[in-house]
Amino acid sequence: MSDRLRETLERIGPLDEEAMEAARARQDQLTKPAGSLGRLEELAVRIAGIAGNPTPRIESKVVVVMAGDHGVVADGVSLFPQDVTPQMVMNFLAGGAAINVLAHHAGARVVVVDMGVAGELEPLPGLVSRKIGHGTGNIARGPAMTRQQAVDAVEAGIEIVGTEKEQGLDIVATGDMGIGNTTPSSAICAAITGASVDEITGPGTGLDRERVVQKAAVIGKALEVNCLDPDDALDVLSKVGGFEIGGLAGVILGAAARRTPVVLDGFISGAAALIAATLCPRARDYLIAGHLSPEPGHQVILDHLRLQPLLNLGMRLGEGTGAVLGIFLAEAAVRALNEMATFGQAGVSGPGGQE
Amino acid sequence: MSDRLRETLERIGPLDEEAMEAARARQDQLTKPAGSLGRLEELAVRIAGIAGNPTPRIESKVVVVMAGDHGVVADGVSLFPQDVTPQMVMNFLAGGAAINVLAHHAGARVVVVDMGVAGELEPLPGLVSRKIGHGTGNIARGPAMTRQQAVDAVEAGIEIVGTEKEQGLDIVATGDMGIGNTTPSSAICAAITGASVDEITGPGTGLDRERVVQKAAVIGKALEVNCLDPDDALDVLSKVGGFEIGGLAGVILGAAARRTPVVLDGFISGAAALIAATLCPRARDYLIAGHLSPEPGHQVILDHLRLQPLLNLGMRLGEGTGAVLGIFLAEAAVRALNEMATFGQAGVSGPGGQE
Repeated sequence: MSDRLRETLERIGPLDEEAMEAARARQDQLTKPAGSLGRLEELAVRIAGIAGNPTPRIESKVVVVMAGDHGVVADGVSLFPQDVTPQMVMNFLAGGAAINVLAHHAGARVVVVDMGVAGELEPLPGLVSRKIGHGTGNIARGPAMTRQQAVDAVEAGIEIVGTEKEQGLDIVATGDMGIGNTTPSSAICAAITGASVDEITGPGTGLDRERVVQKAAVIGKALEVNCLDPDDALDVLSKVGGFEIGGLAGVILGAAARRTPVVLDGFISGAAALIAATLCPRARDYLIAGHLSPEPGHQVILDHLRLQPLLNLGMRLGEGTGAVLGIFLAEAAVRALNEMATFGQAGVSGPGGQE
Repeated sequence: MSDRLRETLERIGPLDEEAMEAARARQDQLTKPAGSLGRLEELAVRIAGIAGNPTPRIESKVVVVMAGDHGVVADGVSLFPQDVTPQMVMNFLAGGAAINVLAHHAGARVVVVDMGVAGELEPLPGLVSRKIGHGTGNIARGPAMTRQQAVDAVEAGIEIVGTEKEQGLDIVATGDMGIGNTTPSSAICAAITGASVDEITGPGTGLDRERVVQKAAVIGKALEVNCLDPDDALDVLSKVGGFEIGGLAGVILGAAARRTPVVLDGFISGAAALIAATLCPRARDYLIAGHLSPEPGHQVILDHLRLQPLLNLGMRLGEGTGAVLGIFLAEAAVRALNEMATFGQAGVSGPGGQE
């Protein structure tokens, strides 16, 4: 482990209990029956604890969309050709993808990062190039990357959050693009949670049943040929991970180290969160599960991380699309906490008639 | 039934299948795996069918918050005193309530209507006065209102939507305020769905177990002393309903008649939807369930209406708070449909490599 990564992990502190207590006390004074905003109240209190501020602000919002390719596509694990990864990166930069539309709707900026697309991408306005490699190795035959590349990928994510934070980041969402990346995510999920490959392997972008069975066999082989130490997250990432997955693990750790809430997208972001939480279990406290994907391993990941998703709309697109909807809800939660009138301010009687 | 109400019911037509088919065809050309936006795709298609437009717009958004009082509070069915109803109306007008904060966050305007608050409210800027009575009668001893008052309440809601529609309304959310109003809503729910009172009676703003049992007894008595015809929605509304509940039923019917989607809030809005759907079953197609409330009767209502909620966050505040979050999701759905690039436009390969 590098010094920079170690410093980041050491910097991740506990939630600020005092800020949370003050936020809870304020919730009970607001003009509503106690607890009646349900999970929005809990969420606002936790964001207070993350930010170390009883009335946290969410104004500057970013979704980091990381792209990478996967050598394992050679084994037919995806419905789409690998070319789609750079094509979609271009679509992100042109503003035509789902994440562009939904991030704009939620008031979040899209940061697009090339973590390891197979082909060369021209330098383009808006594209952050942190290429660790030209796609990973085929995990069904050997490791995805070297241990150093795994460290570099995580550190790239940490640095990107650091740069954003200097501009005043209040919340960050994770997003991914990478044809074939449910396969390494499934391998990470099986390795770290201990779930069986058959239980967690799903259709990804839309494989039929037969091809899901073939995909599960590929994932099983990846776990067989790569001798993994499930307690060593960098080993798991380097052997069966992906560059964008490592980068997103870095985004999570960097955000946690800078007391910034992270809204997770679906299965691939969940795999990144497993890597991050294995490196630093406390990082879990900084995570908000934006939504639940129908990809079967996602529920397994959220259970392992003890996270409850905000939304369950059958979304399985990636890119951060579920996460930016979660940003809207997180912002709703803190706005209610900050902006509602108290019983005293509004002259409204409390339960039993006390003001 | 009055002529105006009958005309409104007759005007509620089927969804526009052609617009839905065109919206579905467009969904499959957008740069995402087919169906990967899950329920957002279905929602956008349904809104296309409601609006009769394959690329419907959601720009002008309103939440109608209707307030009324309930004579049954004399029997101790609520934790809060009746004064809170007008106090909260003042809070809505001053912008300090949860609905003000969340509606602003979702870009929706709040329309506050006095449908039947017990006391006199001064004429105030922003307050729409459609007072049908000074609170309802105690339903545990007799009818809530006359049949004419029930018709007047529904028509008031229809008119309010009509006025808003002239200004260009694209989507409307329902909200309520009325101390004690989970009690008439439970009575309506039991009468129309046939569920047992014990099954559907809940804590409302926060009653303990013992008081929930007392409340169930009051609801049982209301159904006993009032001879109801469950197939006659105006009979149900007049005997065990409320002025704000009738008004919201009118909002639903008026919106459906004008091909405008309606996002329902929680249990009280659900009771209004039962009244509306009993008057005109086709109105159901125009309804979007914003969220699921933990009030036990709400799931029973949604099952009866065959609606699946967008959110399940344990919210039980009313005012339209869950519904305006649903507006955000509905807008997200149509924005994705309208604004995303197609495979052809973006030069992205489809499944199997076809462009």
